[in-house]
Amino acid sequence: TMAEIYLDNNATTKPLETVVERMTEVLLQHYGNPSSIHFRGHLASSLVEDSREQIANTINADSSCLIFTSGGTESNNLALKSLLNAGTLLITSRIEHSSVYQLSKQFHEDGGRVHFLDVLPSGIVDLADLEQTLSHSNAKSVVAVQWANSETGVIQPVSAISELCQKHEAHYHCDAVQAFGRVPIDTNQIAIDSITITAHKIHGPKGIGALYLRTVETLDPQIIGGDQESGLRSGTENVAGIAGFAEAAIARHSRFEKVNQHLKTLTRTFAERVQAKFPSVIINGLEDRISNTINLQFPGIDGQALVVLLDQQGLMCSQSSACTNKRPEPSRVLRSMGLSEEEAYSSIRFSVSEFTTDAEICEAADILLGTLKTQQKFMDMKGVA
Amino acid sequence: TMAEIYLDNNATTKPLETVVERMTEVLLQHYGNPSSIHFRGHLASSLVEDSREQIANTINADSSCLIFTSGGTESNNLALKSLLNAGTLLITSRIEHSSVYQLSKQFHEDGGRVHFLDVLPSGIVDLADLEQTLSHSNAKSVVAVQWANSETGVIQPVSAISELCQKHEAHYHCDAVQAFGRVPIDTNQIAIDSITITAHKIHGPKGIGALYLRTVETLDPQIIGGDQESGLRSGTENVAGIAGFAEAAIARHSRFEKVNQHLKTLTRTFAERVQAKFPSVIINGLEDRISNTINLQFPGIDGQALVVLLDQQGLMCSQSSACTNKRPEPSRVLRSMGLSEEEAYSSIRFSVSEFTTDAEICEAADILLGTLKTQQKFMDMKGVA
Repeated sequence: TMAEIYLDNNATTKPLETVVERMTEVLLQHYGNPSSIHFRGHLASSLVEDSREQIANTINADSSCLIFTSGGTESNNLALKSLLNAGTLLITSRIEHSSVYQLSKQFHEDGGRVHFLDVLPSGIVDLADLEQTLSHSNAKSVVAVQWANSETGVIQPVSAISELCQKHEAHYHCDAVQAFGRVPIDTNQIAIDSITITAHKIHGPKGIGALYLRTVETLDPQIIGGDQESGLRSGTENVAGIAGFAEAAIARHSRFEKVNQHLKTLTRTFAERVQAKFPSVIINGLEDRISNTINLQFPGIDGQALVVLLDQQGLMCSQSSACTNKRPEPSRVLRSMGLSEEEAYSSIRFSVSEFTTDAEICEAADILLGTLKTQQKFMDMKGVA
Repeated sequence: TMAEIYLDNNATTKPLETVVERMTEVLLQHYGNPSSIHFRGHLASSLVEDSREQIANTINADSSCLIFTSGGTESNNLALKSLLNAGTLLITSRIEHSSVYQLSKQFHEDGGRVHFLDVLPSGIVDLADLEQTLSHSNAKSVVAVQWANSETGVIQPVSAISELCQKHEAHYHCDAVQAFGRVPIDTNQIAIDSITITAHKIHGPKGIGALYLRTVETLDPQIIGGDQESGLRSGTENVAGIAGFAEAAIARHSRFEKVNQHLKTLTRTFAERVQAKFPSVIINGLEDRISNTINLQFPGIDGQALVVLLDQQGLMCSQSSACTNKRPEPSRVLRSMGLSEEEAYSSIRFSVSEFTTDAEICEAADILLGTLKTQQKFMDMKGVA
């Protein structure tokens, strides 16, 4: 039988069995509407509040600072839409997730002022550019720079960004979807005004996320109605999703070091095995990356074809992020880091999870190396590269 | 042991076991991101598209007309926000769900033109008022009138409303959250421009809904990013929720007549038993109601206290809708129908589901009657009413 090795965990992860069990229990037993004032309503409402506290704890935040949304995209939209207006200067980058990037582009097209920060070849945003832009801004500045990049895994200098924002009284919004559970996030240690997190990158369900707000007063609700989530996000709560989110967050938090050590070992082993037999491979992005992600450039190889060939052998990975797959262009993340179109097209992201085994990662490297060999021959025949 | 009788199914319903089983299966096996272009991505994407088609079939719509959202509140916000601008006249009513009503109020406060239709004592909107308002409108008109009311269950004259809207080239948006699965909805029979439906009122999961659009061109996306849902609603799809929604929709559609006959019998039995021993009871709203809902007025009785007392005996019901419970005011739905404050305060909604049994409904009537008796004595003692 064919292998099935899933190395696309930055797109989404398989839920933990305990998460699914918890959701099943909640769906069947805690089915009340949290807004109802009877027994079943109170049960559901307690469950939502307990979950909120459990998730908030994992980022060392007060539960009153966390509001639930339908996911990372909604959280990013919610935070930014309530901040951006005619008087705002938005400072962001071209390596943000499409929910931030497309919003920035739209804001710009609608006449808003947007500054896209330079990105260094290492994959991080240029802090000098940020400082200069903030210093020269005579408007209310909003900075939107992610915690970790979904394609390269590169961790941004969020502490330094936060300090610059504080100094210049700018609002710092941070998309931490790929960092949550993979990097320690402590809202008491770093002053970030709003943070987006989601469940489905850490083996929780899809369709549920949260927005952390240092002060809820900054938020302008985008979905209004029954005043759920303190009036900041209306709509009947996704109770089972929230409970599954909490279960996943607790599970990761309680085994944080162990899991991330495992992820790190897996990506290192993978890179080493590939480098040993394909020495021209280049790792895109500097060393300080989230534990589970490695983005490899294979000079002379067509990455799009490679992804398809690997998939046919049961090895699943991705050329860029799932949320940009619908735009068949070279990765704007890699292009922003200075890679050429060809270099970007020859790059692939591998993202492991706690379910990935050592045996799988070795088999994945073998499948990849075998495929690279045939592709190289093919390219040589065609006289390419 | 105490009874547990859940008669608050218009707030939310308990998921079917088959729905939960399907969701469990999808969470564990179809965990891919539908935007991923590998095996697991294609599986997830097929599942989303199959579910879309299955749900669309139940309202006789083409699947391309249906986009998934996080629920009814988001669907209503999405449809209306993309229609309302400086040139628009919004024609709606004060008996709409809070996701429509609060949006209308906000639009009005922001300087938008809003006309609230008169509501007749029977519970339906005044068609003469609608026709007159449409005739005199020199703006692009948007009509937002629900299919069925969540508190009284009263079915609005949607056919007549749709005809008036067509005649006057107005956009008709219809919140069908309480009607879906309880009234036949056929988008080929009635021309409605946009329709909101949701899963959790028909034993599907919370956190997933849909918006039907006769022509998708009318829609201005409110959440942008990865261009999911044809670019009309971005964010990684809630695959398990979507599958659960489809399961619930199919289950109801295939047993539509049988289930609704059962619901009708239950509410009729309940009303008859209560009337027999408490003859002063008044049914709020005319006879043409969704099968599962009955709103009863108990002259001289404090409804809020009654709900609490019933809850203490295991009988769960509601004074108004769950989404207005946080505002301790008399029901604006009942007040709009002409009921006095006192009459509104003395009214309670009972909403059954296919899980409700004949025995339960008889026990519920007994519990209610017993409580009414003690409350009447208490009121008499205090010299009230």
